Amino acid sequence: MQARRKVYVEGPRPDVRVPFAEVELTGDNPPVRLYDTSGPGSDPDTGLPPLRGPWIAERGDVAPVRGGGSPLAGTRPTQLAYARAGRVTPEMEFVAVREGVPASVVRDEIAAGRAVLPANVNHPESEPMIIGSRFLVKVNANIGTSAVTSSIAEEVDKLTWATRWGADTVMDLSTGKRIHETREAIVRNSAVPIGTVPIYQALEKVGGDPVKLSWEVFRETVIEQAEQGVDYMTVHAGVLLPYVPLAVDRVTGIVSRGGSIMAAWCLAHHEENFLYTNFAELCELLARYDVTFSLGDGLRPGSIADANDEAQFAELRTLGELTTVAWEHDVQVMIEGPGHVPMHKIKENVDLQQELCHQAPFYTLGPLTTDIAPAYDHITSAIGAAMIGMFGTAMLCYVTPKEHLGLPDRDDVKAGVIAYKIAAHAADLAKGHPGAQAWDDALSKARFEFRWEDQFNLALDPDTARAYHDATLPAEPAKTAHFCSMCGPKFCSMKITQELKEYAARGMRDKSQEFVDSGGRVYLPQA
Amino acid sequence: MQARRKVYVEGPRPDVRVPFAEVELTGDNPPVRLYDTSGPGSDPDTGLPPLRGPWIAERGDVAPVRGGGSPLAGTRPTQLAYARAGRVTPEMEFVAVREGVPASVVRDEIAAGRAVLPANVNHPESEPMIIGSRFLVKVNANIGTSAVTSSIAEEVDKLTWATRWGADTVMDLSTGKRIHETREAIVRNSAVPIGTVPIYQALEKVGGDPVKLSWEVFRETVIEQAEQGVDYMTVHAGVLLPYVPLAVDRVTGIVSRGGSIMAAWCLAHHEENFLYTNFAELCELLARYDVTFSLGDGLRPGSIADANDEAQFAELRTLGELTTVAWEHDVQVMIEGPGHVPMHKIKENVDLQQELCHQAPFYTLGPLTTDIAPAYDHITSAIGAAMIGMFGTAMLCYVTPKEHLGLPDRDDVKAGVIAYKIAAHAADLAKGHPGAQAWDDALSKARFEFRWEDQFNLALDPDTARAYHDATLPAEPAKTAHFCSMCGPKFCSMKITQELKEYAARGMRDKSQEFVDSGGRVYLPQA
Repeated sequence: MQARRKVYVEGPRPDVRVPFAEVELTGDNPPVRLYDTSGPGSDPDTGLPPLRGPWIAERGDVAPVRGGGSPLAGTRPTQLAYARAGRVTPEMEFVAVREGVPASVVRDEIAAGRAVLPANVNHPESEPMIIGSRFLVKVNANIGTSAVTSSIAEEVDKLTWATRWGADTVMDLSTGKRIHETREAIVRNSAVPIGTVPIYQALEKVGGDPVKLSWEVFRETVIEQAEQGVDYMTVHAGVLLPYVPLAVDRVTGIVSRGGSIMAAWCLAHHEENFLYTNFAELCELLARYDVTFSLGDGLRPGSIADANDEAQFAELRTLGELTTVAWEHDVQVMIEGPGHVPMHKIKENVDLQQELCHQAPFYTLGPLTTDIAPAYDHITSAIGAAMIGMFGTAMLCYVTPKEHLGLPDRDDVKAGVIAYKIAAHAADLAKGHPGAQAWDDALSKARFEFRWEDQFNLALDPDTARAYHDATLPAEPAKTAHFCSMCGPKFCSMKITQELKEYAARGMRDKSQEFVDSGGRVYLPQA
Repeated sequence: MQARRKVYVEGPRPDVRVPFAEVELTGDNPPVRLYDTSGPGSDPDTGLPPLRGPWIAERGDVAPVRGGGSPLAGTRPTQLAYARAGRVTPEMEFVAVREGVPASVVRDEIAAGRAVLPANVNHPESEPMIIGSRFLVKVNANIGTSAVTSSIAEEVDKLTWATRWGADTVMDLSTGKRIHETREAIVRNSAVPIGTVPIYQALEKVGGDPVKLSWEVFRETVIEQAEQGVDYMTVHAGVLLPYVPLAVDRVTGIVSRGGSIMAAWCLAHHEENFLYTNFAELCELLARYDVTFSLGDGLRPGSIADANDEAQFAELRTLGELTTVAWEHDVQVMIEGPGHVPMHKIKENVDLQQELCHQAPFYTLGPLTTDIAPAYDHITSAIGAAMIGMFGTAMLCYVTPKEHLGLPDRDDVKAGVIAYKIAAHAADLAKGHPGAQAWDDALSKARFEFRWEDQFNLALDPDTARAYHDATLPAEPAKTAHFCSMCGPKFCSMKITQELKEYAARGMRDKSQEFVDSGGRVYLPQA
């Protein structure tokens, strides 16, 4: 029995219809509504319907194109600009319903720069979502073709698969020959915001030689991607020439691809990073499409030994300065973070980022809490991700079991997303997010009452929970049995306590003798 | 290439030979020595050689039996008694070499009750190990037959498998018909300490009816198991009659099997827990064999909703009192802990346990940091385990993917052990354990230098790391390639930084022009 179905909750206007996954429970247990990232499915031929098309059009600050819009000169159609002007957009209304908070809170958090709502005017297919420490912790999944392996169809499938399991945003990190086509297929089929790292495509355009990169090539690439509808872009504008030597004595140097490309350019030209020197113009470009900055941490640590070092924090200070510049241009900003960090150094990362970057949302890759477990880095990093989420990180970039070893396939994407949904939800619980614990309570109550099907249907991954149960006790009656295979029918502690509970409810002291008289059995005798 | 081999380091006496797994590295990189729990293998017919036999015999306080000993009346042949008398036993010397600390530190930590060295005089096959917050964080794996499934041979195989991947102790939680034989096979083949929960077997002896349990049946069972060589026993002596009602309004009541059995007994008889009322006599029994107490948390929370409640902490206070009683009898003690705890409530568990139980070692099950992910509870709990380890927990009881769903098979045992070795090592790093980071640094250095085989051989699970790599780039030359499949040969950031590093070493400023003149390439052009 699959008891999950998509329901829509209407906002203050009828075209704000917010999806939830509703889990029907047995008996008189009320259904549970879960946040739903899966979108309306995908259509390989036409892409998704342009949900936000009317909202973008009615604001009148972009010229309509394909349901989205082409920027009008001088306008800044960003959610940040609207929020600062006191406007609550339909996108904010959507998010408010989704998060269960007043729309004014959404607007105010965006206006203060503490949250971003990535929503390119040319990606009308997206269902609005928000990234900020006052909201549910979000998860990003990376996909993308590489020079070595994989096809466009596979990547679109990974997109759909990742969002089915709960990815809140997806980054297309494609390299190789067909970057533009891959991205087009992904954006048109995505109900979640899409992020990219434009320097990868810019590098393709100059034949793969970082020394030949230029502001002009980069600028052209950003416009191309913004026109396509990319919602946020990683820009390594904080890798400054004087910081590069700080990374030379590290155990693992520079491990960010974008960071190493920019470092190579800076050294070869002995000039300052052109992303930094042209940052104001870049802001103007991004503002025209409402592309959100994801200020990249090109000098993030790639090993436990390199965590929290001067290279990392020097760059972070620069990202803080750039945040202010972006905000002056009404551009939304989030800040990328590490990487590899031992547990006792995690909190400092959040505290410093919040201080230096004026509370802009933090978006971290893991961090991995040890280097010793390649093939299990979804776990080494879920530990760090849960902790950094608890300390205030707004979005967690997943790590799959293939990290450091190869490109993730479909199974790896799922393993990564699940591990990160666990981390994000554990953080929501620890932050006391209103409503987060209701999910846990509903599942635990189902478990305690031996409502097996309810327990499976409420699980983050119902398929695997059901399969694991059935592997030991495949018979259908076992799913209604008042025991499970760990203990068998005689020793089940849940069963014993349930009977204790009933017993206690009848008044423990007085009923003690009656209990013994009745045979004193608190479990079912084994057949 | 498998480049791990077992080496032995000799202690101050020649029969103290401590095993390590030595990883040979390529080039002029020194080999890395890792803690090794795998033991000398197993022999289904004869069991393992009695390593500790001569040490036990030469102390002269037990009558020799089968390489171990039968207690002499009135003696207390415990490591705690020896440590308090200022003696450094061969077991302590073994541990000192294993942990890389002076033997006096081992002795003093045991004498103070802050560490335990579980070593039943009738389990001479064991390789001594220590559990305490000043030492490496340890991992326990649960195995055992149930009434529903599994065989003795399977359980011995799981034992060998669990210790191969790093389990420091193993608990035999068998229920059903062949408890004694199963345990005999496990103890005789185990180089790690074996723990049990004697109440399970006692319950079998009374036909599965908890009301028929008695101190006499329990006592007889403890002696039987102590004679066999069980190194530590979980005893739910803290589930007191007045505490039972505290659990009635919980979401998940009492989830500990032992706890629910004792609660059922207390309620039926309306008498105080016989494990509590006979605790002093129990101490005398355990002292005779040097069985370590693992004081069970029968009222541990089984859901996020129930964490850190009055039922849990009332029992913990009682465990603190019992710790003092055990120590008066020279019996070693550790304290069991939860369970299900959200991240922000984890630290309180350790702080309170350390305070109430006078710094006796804490031994926790997880804790799971959310209830929503059955089939992934090795991950939900590895997060909590890593954190509680960082805060001072000495041993982590693993949770497998089958938790709440079924009995773990071989793959689940491995998945659970690996997740917990990650948690334990992450905690060692966070605690700044001397030497812990050397492993990470060696692996990261290998990664950065594209020494693929060294990276695999240093990995916690070399087999899976190698397989994942080969899944994308199966060709043998790829393992010597200076790139990996994530980026391909053109974009590899590690490769770029390596060249930056060489470049920087030659003097960045002066060489800038030369770099450009030479074509400015910092990567290999794609073939």
